[in-house]
Amino acid sequence: MKHGAFQDHYSDETSYCYGCGRFNEHGLRIKSYWDEEGVRTVCRFRPSRVYTALPGYVYGGLIASLIDCHGTGSAAAFAHHASGLELGSDPSLRFVTASLHVDFLAPTPIECELVLLGFLDEIKGRRVVVRVELRAKGELCAKGRVVAVRPRRLPINNGKSPDR
Amino acid sequence: MKHGAFQDHYSDETSYCYGCGRFNEHGLRIKSYWDEEGVRTVCRFRPSRVYTALPGYVYGGLIASLIDCHGTGSAAAFAHHASGLELGSDPSLRFVTASLHVDFLAPTPIECELVLLGFLDEIKGRRVVVRVELRAKGELCAKGRVVAVRPRRLPINNGKSPDR
Repeated sequence: MKHGAFQDHYSDETSYCYGCGRFNEHGLRIKSYWDEEGVRTVCRFRPSRVYTALPGYVYGGLIASLIDCHGTGSAAAFAHHASGLELGSDPSLRFVTASLHVDFLAPTPIECELVLLGFLDEIKGRRVVVRVELRAKGELCAKGRVVAVRPRRLPINNGKSPDR
Repeated sequence: MKHGAFQDHYSDETSYCYGCGRFNEHGLRIKSYWDEEGVRTVCRFRPSRVYTALPGYVYGGLIASLIDCHGTGSAAAFAHHASGLELGSDPSLRFVTASLHVDFLAPTPIECELVLLGFLDEIKGRRVVVRVELRAKGELCAKGRVVAVRPRRLPINNGKSPDR
């Protein structure tokens, strides 16, 4: 199993994402890893105060973003693992989000590190379902579910082709 | 019915949200309004290229954020309307998100204005369910569902009280 963040193995052209793209200077740079046992996936994120909801608490849209990018990153990792492949060895194993669900269970304090765990719920063909739990100071603050799919052709419009 | 964006009627202390707070300098400043018939709610947003997903398309976390803040703003407007109140006349009618669901139906082009429509699905006590449709160039790109609740006491930690 290759080391490093899942997102660091994405191809260059798919690395401009506001959430997790290493080439997006203004983005969140979300990074996901295997846990020590190599079963669950982990993302740690320290939000800046800019991402406030009500004062003192994290914006729900940021929580949705963390769950989204950790979910699709985890989907890629689970798919590589299920195929017996090293992370990044097959760039076609890049997932996009078909649906995203977040249950906000408790206000998430902003002055601490957020820890997200990803669990493989289902893997079937081009579709991977990932469950995500987000904790702050040990408390479960949000639960998410990401249905990630691997498109036959990634939707990329880099300006060389007509806009849709 | 008072004019202006729903979010402009939020109380000062609840106006620091990254998504829709008028006092968040670095935020998205999402604004929601009644449509002409005063039945549906409308939000228009022109994303900057920073909020890229794959090149040429809008980041899913931004779409989730737009649906979230347009959903809670619409919940406040629907609740005022159901109580026969002018927007902003009862500051306690401020909603937070209990759950957020987004179905991403098509890649959303980034070089255009996004239009979100909000529909009242259910209103019952402190709980309002809002459905949201997001279109780009007339095409339905995402559908959302926001379960918004009006807490008895808003979770606000402005540093004057201990952190949780």
